[in-house]
Amino acid sequence: MPEISTQPDAEDRGDTVALIGAGVVGRGWIPTFSRAGCMVRVYDADRSQLDHAAAWFADYEADNPGGARSGAAHVRFERDLGAALAGASYVQESISEDLSAKASLFGQIAARVSDKTLIASSTSSIDINDIARDVAHPERCFTVHPFNPAAVIPVVEVLGTRLCGALERLRLLEFLRSVGQVPVVLSRFTPGYVGNRLQAAVMREAMDLLGKGVVDTDGIDFLLSQGLALRWVLLGAFGTNHANADEGVRGYYRRFYGSYRALMATLAVDAPELDEVTVERIAAALDARFGAAPVAQIARWRDQCILELRRTLEGHPFKP
Amino acid sequence: MPEISTQPDAEDRGDTVALIGAGVVGRGWIPTFSRAGCMVRVYDADRSQLDHAAAWFADYEADNPGGARSGAAHVRFERDLGAALAGASYVQESISEDLSAKASLFGQIAARVSDKTLIASSTSSIDINDIARDVAHPERCFTVHPFNPAAVIPVVEVLGTRLCGALERLRLLEFLRSVGQVPVVLSRFTPGYVGNRLQAAVMREAMDLLGKGVVDTDGIDFLLSQGLALRWVLLGAFGTNHANADEGVRGYYRRFYGSYRALMATLAVDAPELDEVTVERIAAALDARFGAAPVAQIARWRDQCILELRRTLEGHPFKP
Repeated sequence: MPEISTQPDAEDRGDTVALIGAGVVGRGWIPTFSRAGCMVRVYDADRSQLDHAAAWFADYEADNPGGARSGAAHVRFERDLGAALAGASYVQESISEDLSAKASLFGQIAARVSDKTLIASSTSSIDINDIARDVAHPERCFTVHPFNPAAVIPVVEVLGTRLCGALERLRLLEFLRSVGQVPVVLSRFTPGYVGNRLQAAVMREAMDLLGKGVVDTDGIDFLLSQGLALRWVLLGAFGTNHANADEGVRGYYRRFYGSYRALMATLAVDAPELDEVTVERIAAALDARFGAAPVAQIARWRDQCILELRRTLEGHPFKP
Repeated sequence: MPEISTQPDAEDRGDTVALIGAGVVGRGWIPTFSRAGCMVRVYDADRSQLDHAAAWFADYEADNPGGARSGAAHVRFERDLGAALAGASYVQESISEDLSAKASLFGQIAARVSDKTLIASSTSSIDINDIARDVAHPERCFTVHPFNPAAVIPVVEVLGTRLCGALERLRLLEFLRSVGQVPVVLSRFTPGYVGNRLQAAVMREAMDLLGKGVVDTDGIDFLLSQGLALRWVLLGAFGTNHANADEGVRGYYRRFYGSYRALMATLAVDAPELDEVTVERIAAALDARFGAAPVAQIARWRDQCILELRRTLEGHPFKP
């Protein structure tokens, strides 16, 4: 089982991390690295986005979802790309999903940092081989794709370039684990990488069932929150299968995979359209569920609960 | 938000529940009803299956995952169908997924219980309208489909027959909630109902990615357990979308549903075959993860953790 440390490493470890791009994804990385004791430099070419991220982080630290330790003293918001990159041993790029902008930025970054600096993109849709095409030493370029909110969700998807160096990959995985992340290494690019594909698979079927009137918004969400996800959060999909038959996964598939396949053949295959009426129906159900609370309040609750769930599970490691 | 009470109702409430069929699914219902203070009568036409269920329940109570309260005194294992059904106000059928066997059993049950008795099937694949075809008063027949392990997973899928009575449905929902379940009402039959379709959608994509060598068994499982499921267990799928954009679900879909649809169009559409080599690869990864621990031990850990997670979340209700 992976470690899911919510209290990574010691204070002030000497690493300097540059976060380039400070939207929802980019700013979400700040607490991950600052709580782990890294020096964090945040940059965004859009001044208002940078200011917004600084305000968001101040609010975030005031709420203090990570517990007593604050890493705020380690964080600086920089208005100059060179200042943000100075001395960085790790760069995390999180600008918008635009290949030419990312490729150009990767070229600029690579030209300003040491050859040893690891350069990662938060992309969830673009091949890292394309993003790193103008970089002289692409063996130290990676996708490190987080899941929002990156500050509390530990898993990240890792994909190196085709020229990825074994040593660089080892350094990257060690660094990510040292700041409390759970890296999952992919062997090649696929659109959306893996996590978003699994999510899109659920959403495709959910939207189809909603459109056919089989179930409503709350029904789908409660089947996940009070059912399927209670198993997945412990065991994943294959582990859930394993624990669901007295004789384990071999027997489970022998007995049930045939029915599974027959069911798979009936699932939605087209990507459902989403009209305004359906969006309003979904939104109305969510407003009723949350008493029309502001999203920021729901997100704070989510972040606190995720940390609390992870602490609960740390108290119950599986011991064979 | 639904209540997810792990300590339902008072002792000995006077309801008598008959559980017909005592395999993995049927026996999983025993603690749900016994802990809630119902009198529980368990029957299986296969004597060895009945004995096995009794032994399983004794072990289960010895481990006592539900906390201090034991409902064992309320449970009897009956070797006669009539004895199991005597005085039952609620019947839960959980025999194997065979329409003619279920339909015949429903006919027998209906002939032996009061017209007011609610009769439910645990089926996950057969239309309740077919199962209840020989029942004189099908308005009190329902699918109540649990998710394994039913003893600790609260959500159930509820589907009435086309002749379903509004009063009967209300009585059923009240009863299920009173024993700590979270019923999700479906409006019509679809193969696999809803929960298993969502699960099959994940499995179809996961098997496809595994077959293509994009990611391995652990990678899929950790992306779920350390990522996606940490959000779904709190918010479901639509709630996760809502909390993922500063302006909520309306803005989320306006900005991202186009990319979602494009991604959906690239997902697996065929039901992947599962050869022996792949099964062994999955099984080897799980054996390594769990130190080849017996499934019963993994399942006990799972059950304890699920109850602990539910208690953790009860301590953090969303308060707008």
